[in-house]
Amino acid sequence: MSRFWSARVRELVPYVPGEQPKISNLVKLNTNEHPFGPSPKAIAAMQAALTDDLRLYPDPNADALRQSIADYYDLAAQGGDKSWVFVGNGSDEVLAHAFHGLFQHDKPLLFPDISYSFYPVYCQLYDIAFETVALTPAFEIDPVDYARPNGGVIFPNPNAPTGRVLALAAIEQILQANRDVVVLVDEAYIDFGGDSAVALVGRYDNLLITQTLSKSRALAGLRVGLAIGQPHLIEALERIKNSFNSYPLGRVALAGAQAAFEDRAYFDSMQQMVVMQRDSLTAKLERMGFEVLPSGANFVFARHPAHAGADLAQALRERAVVVRQFNKPRIAEFLRITVGTPDQHAALLEALAEIIM
Amino acid sequence: MSRFWSARVRELVPYVPGEQPKISNLVKLNTNEHPFGPSPKAIAAMQAALTDDLRLYPDPNADALRQSIADYYDLAAQGGDKSWVFVGNGSDEVLAHAFHGLFQHDKPLLFPDISYSFYPVYCQLYDIAFETVALTPAFEIDPVDYARPNGGVIFPNPNAPTGRVLALAAIEQILQANRDVVVLVDEAYIDFGGDSAVALVGRYDNLLITQTLSKSRALAGLRVGLAIGQPHLIEALERIKNSFNSYPLGRVALAGAQAAFEDRAYFDSMQQMVVMQRDSLTAKLERMGFEVLPSGANFVFARHPAHAGADLAQALRERAVVVRQFNKPRIAEFLRITVGTPDQHAALLEALAEIIM
Repeated sequence: MSRFWSARVRELVPYVPGEQPKISNLVKLNTNEHPFGPSPKAIAAMQAALTDDLRLYPDPNADALRQSIADYYDLAAQGGDKSWVFVGNGSDEVLAHAFHGLFQHDKPLLFPDISYSFYPVYCQLYDIAFETVALTPAFEIDPVDYARPNGGVIFPNPNAPTGRVLALAAIEQILQANRDVVVLVDEAYIDFGGDSAVALVGRYDNLLITQTLSKSRALAGLRVGLAIGQPHLIEALERIKNSFNSYPLGRVALAGAQAAFEDRAYFDSMQQMVVMQRDSLTAKLERMGFEVLPSGANFVFARHPAHAGADLAQALRERAVVVRQFNKPRIAEFLRITVGTPDQHAALLEALAEIIM
Repeated sequence: MSRFWSARVRELVPYVPGEQPKISNLVKLNTNEHPFGPSPKAIAAMQAALTDDLRLYPDPNADALRQSIADYYDLAAQGGDKSWVFVGNGSDEVLAHAFHGLFQHDKPLLFPDISYSFYPVYCQLYDIAFETVALTPAFEIDPVDYARPNGGVIFPNPNAPTGRVLALAAIEQILQANRDVVVLVDEAYIDFGGDSAVALVGRYDNLLITQTLSKSRALAGLRVGLAIGQPHLIEALERIKNSFNSYPLGRVALAGAQAAFEDRAYFDSMQQMVVMQRDSLTAKLERMGFEVLPSGANFVFARHPAHAGADLAQALRERAVVVRQFNKPRIAEFLRITVGTPDQHAALLEALAEIIM
């Protein structure tokens, strides 16, 4: 605390990301990183960007990347183009701009009680009132609960850390009940299961979707995120961005992200591998007595009837396996386990067997 | 304008960066990029970072880079360490966090009437009152003018777009007159002339310094900036950052920035070359009748008694030479010309000769 600080800083309780340990021989299943690497074409494109041209600023409008994303989602079929796409320095930055530019209203923002724990932090940072809406006992979002006065709605789909998917019909129900506020669907994990709400973006002027290249595209180390919505929503993000940092994405990030979107074949095969790994991990955990929520993400959310979540996480940590556990109401008994490689799963299951037996 | 926007977005007048034309054969002297490339060791370090490890998040605390910066400035000699260093996605992001975290006070922020035009935009974004302080007729900062009630002080040194340097003694005078507010010295161009206020950071708990790798380190395309100050000021930036985006710098940016700071030999020789080029350009412009302000930056600010600034800029543009001209009181007659390569200077001077003669 310092007399120099702005008043807001004094009240802030910052987000705490999952641990990024510097020990290299850990089995790291705590921050939902991709078990395999990014597209070799993305690596090649980044290599090609490592020239003396790095002395020059990047394209502040990221036109080529936004065009590739518009093409990937065939936005033209819905009457859209690259002006429906916004890009930023990871989806956390994109979310921050959305909170700042679209959620500062008199009525409270709504989001699930169990959800991405960065949302209440953004609310603090930008002085946004919020109300949480309880998930059902099965940890699902019930659209009916979002038909009440609000200044905006946000939820991840699949939800984090539960992994549960909301169907597009349910998302439409929420969009229809909230025509005068922005409904932001945070699709960080959408590529691992569930249908993207991008299919609805032409029909709903209140729909904004965010995505990241940190999960399904295996580029957490590069920092690229995006938003898709109709131009009047994208313009709000652009106005904030251009009042904050004209050049959020460097030349290497632009090149790598574009190539990652253009390499569909690699992406599709990686998705299949992660989904197979997830299903196999789920089955093995269930065989050990875990209850595993149905997951559409690259992680599973699991609890054991006989072992406390914090104890399990600690015992795993002692065996060099890192998973995430949240000391929060309703979910403290769960472990969130990132889908890893077969070797990582073997190490995890061996450690769990030791602990549980 | 849209009913979905936060009230603040409606009022924003975003910053307009210098043009980044997509035509490749332009003589581009408008955004103060480095005429030569970055350190080959920085390129090599970035190449080494292009592995499957890009699937993993970067170090959210950027410890290795901050250590290198602390070493570069020998902060230990002042009792400091890497906790005195903050890094972000370009110095624009670092400045934004400083405005948000340190300048939201009841009294107005002070900055020169002729200065970096992003400052008033940050004030709008974060609802900060400000007053501008006129530069002297010779376009210099007079420390006496900053001894009046305020909620903070910010100025670039060297100033932009004038290029004029403020001596450390004058900066101390401002620091001493403002013990209860933050004095932020924006050193984007310090390496091209003038003494860094980093030398004062141990003695003044109200001093914050920002720098960028976009100018003297020839990495505008990478997006890395930094701040140096005592820990209570750095903590304010960290709290904002960790409430905004946990991972502002990717793995490639961290690796390249660290190697750039560690390659002192390359940096020193490049500085000498840019300074030689600047002095040579200044002499040649003066021979053509231009008044050129003394510059400590990698650009010169020059006006011709017989030609309007906007006309000159336009005529240069028609000859494929791009410089920057600001349609603002007191400086509309000036051109801001980035120091380029000998070939770029030859093209510029040839075009100017055509226009003026």
